[in-house]
Amino acid sequence: MKVIFAAYDPQPQRWTNLIAEQLPDAEIIVWEPGMAPTGADYALVWQPAEALFEAERQLKAVFNLGAGIDGLLRLRNLPPALPVVRLEDAGMSVQMAEYVAYHVIGASRDMDLYRSQQADSQWKIHRPIKRSEWPVGVLGLGHIGKRVAQTLAGLEYPVHGWARTAHDIEGVRCHAGQAELDTFLQSTRVLVNTLPLTDETRDLIDYRLLGRLRPGAMLINVGRGEHLVDEDLIRALAEGHVTRAVLDVFRQEPLPGEHPFWRTPGLTITPHISARTLRDATVEQICGKIRALEAGQQVSGVVDLGRGY
Amino acid sequence: MKVIFAAYDPQPQRWTNLIAEQLPDAEIIVWEPGMAPTGADYALVWQPAEALFEAERQLKAVFNLGAGIDGLLRLRNLPPALPVVRLEDAGMSVQMAEYVAYHVIGASRDMDLYRSQQADSQWKIHRPIKRSEWPVGVLGLGHIGKRVAQTLAGLEYPVHGWARTAHDIEGVRCHAGQAELDTFLQSTRVLVNTLPLTDETRDLIDYRLLGRLRPGAMLINVGRGEHLVDEDLIRALAEGHVTRAVLDVFRQEPLPGEHPFWRTPGLTITPHISARTLRDATVEQICGKIRALEAGQQVSGVVDLGRGY
Repeated sequence: MKVIFAAYDPQPQRWTNLIAEQLPDAEIIVWEPGMAPTGADYALVWQPAEALFEAERQLKAVFNLGAGIDGLLRLRNLPPALPVVRLEDAGMSVQMAEYVAYHVIGASRDMDLYRSQQADSQWKIHRPIKRSEWPVGVLGLGHIGKRVAQTLAGLEYPVHGWARTAHDIEGVRCHAGQAELDTFLQSTRVLVNTLPLTDETRDLIDYRLLGRLRPGAMLINVGRGEHLVDEDLIRALAEGHVTRAVLDVFRQEPLPGEHPFWRTPGLTITPHISARTLRDATVEQICGKIRALEAGQQVSGVVDLGRGY
Repeated sequence: MKVIFAAYDPQPQRWTNLIAEQLPDAEIIVWEPGMAPTGADYALVWQPAEALFEAERQLKAVFNLGAGIDGLLRLRNLPPALPVVRLEDAGMSVQMAEYVAYHVIGASRDMDLYRSQQADSQWKIHRPIKRSEWPVGVLGLGHIGKRVAQTLAGLEYPVHGWARTAHDIEGVRCHAGQAELDTFLQSTRVLVNTLPLTDETRDLIDYRLLGRLRPGAMLINVGRGEHLVDEDLIRALAEGHVTRAVLDVFRQEPLPGEHPFWRTPGLTITPHISARTLRDATVEQICGKIRALEAGQQVSGVVDLGRGY
């Protein structure tokens, strides 16, 4: 069995050593554009070049090294019958939940204010949190959105969730489909985006949508940069309906130095670190699935290419 | 029935109006030093003067408006037979849990580093979190400590707990008594103090104790200032064994402007805001207990004065 690794890690042996431990009988190849076809059975990929699928025509499945598979779907030559398997959790959802919780707590508990008071040796107590003033709405209720919603519900914030289809999550008021989107938005002050990027969700977070949130709104985008219309967020912040936003993903990454986001008040910017692919858990999950496929079993996480996630 | 309120709130009617709603038949008196004895049945207090117990000799119970009752126990004339009832949770433990979670996440996920990078428009990704490098140890496993421990265990941090007596909390490795304190400390990198202040716990967090924590240690003190030997923390930070500390409570509050803590690198200082007494939930809990006592029932939260909490 041949397995190729195609993810542009400057130290690919950090991955291939782990794969070799899990699949001792496999030949493991670090794929590079221009390489002769290897006849590989499986590929582990992150945002691969189209050349990969030109060269490798015997793949039985391709494993995405992340939850979002938009980097694969935008290729023009992804074979439609090739099973694409997304990464399921593998330590991502807890990272996302704690990233979001950190920023919600920071806002609702005035942590920035106390930080700046400390810089002035100032002891001043502000009014305590009223959780009812901080309803959180989570867009997308997959592995990640669900974990985010549950974590905030566990901290007793009022939590709403929205997804294309109906969900039932304890402690979370779930809304489904276009028909219930407005109700969801009007119930929400802190909007957390965990949606997959599809043609339906691209540019979803625009001026109109932000305007439906409760006043003093806050946006936390841990989905994809393409979900957000950048200039609409800047306008909503300038007008004051949205008072702060935390962005971890951007249309272009790294975020170019000249992008106005760097200089927009109320914005917190992090370099796509809200949930990192953890090598150990990831390799273990994918190699387990390869062994299952080789044994003729079904595996979970196979993407519905029509739906887009 | 007469109920007195003795807590030095500049707007005591914010409390007495709520009490009147809950106990419509009671006479509610805002107590002040020098006032003639009222013959009150119950008192709601926070750090009351000794004069209260000189004047009011018919009290059936005293209700503390917080979890820690050290402010009552230090009085020389607290009648030994008078039932003292501490506040049980009333929205405190979730506040404490999120305060602690915020600071643990901030440290383990390099949030300060990303904040300072943003100020320089810098996009730089640091290595992902390894949760195994951030074992948390919670001192004290009452309502508050338990909630703190469970919240961090829910975020998949390794969590240890220590208390005077044995506890059993899912997802938390519990240690008990002096004999197991060292094992607990040696397993801990982030030490969270939620202990009650008693003669046994005063000055517990000293240079020796801090030295037993894992290297790169962090202290989060949400208990009482008297638990910590201030100069020992400053020494441990200067020597580098402890790399950061988050302090919400101090021996003198407000923390005096000349205290070296204000100028110690690695310290985060907040003005005793980790858990605030929430009026609605507090009054509801206490008035419910007054009704129960009047009906001849037992109530929970009665302090063991010998034990001190």
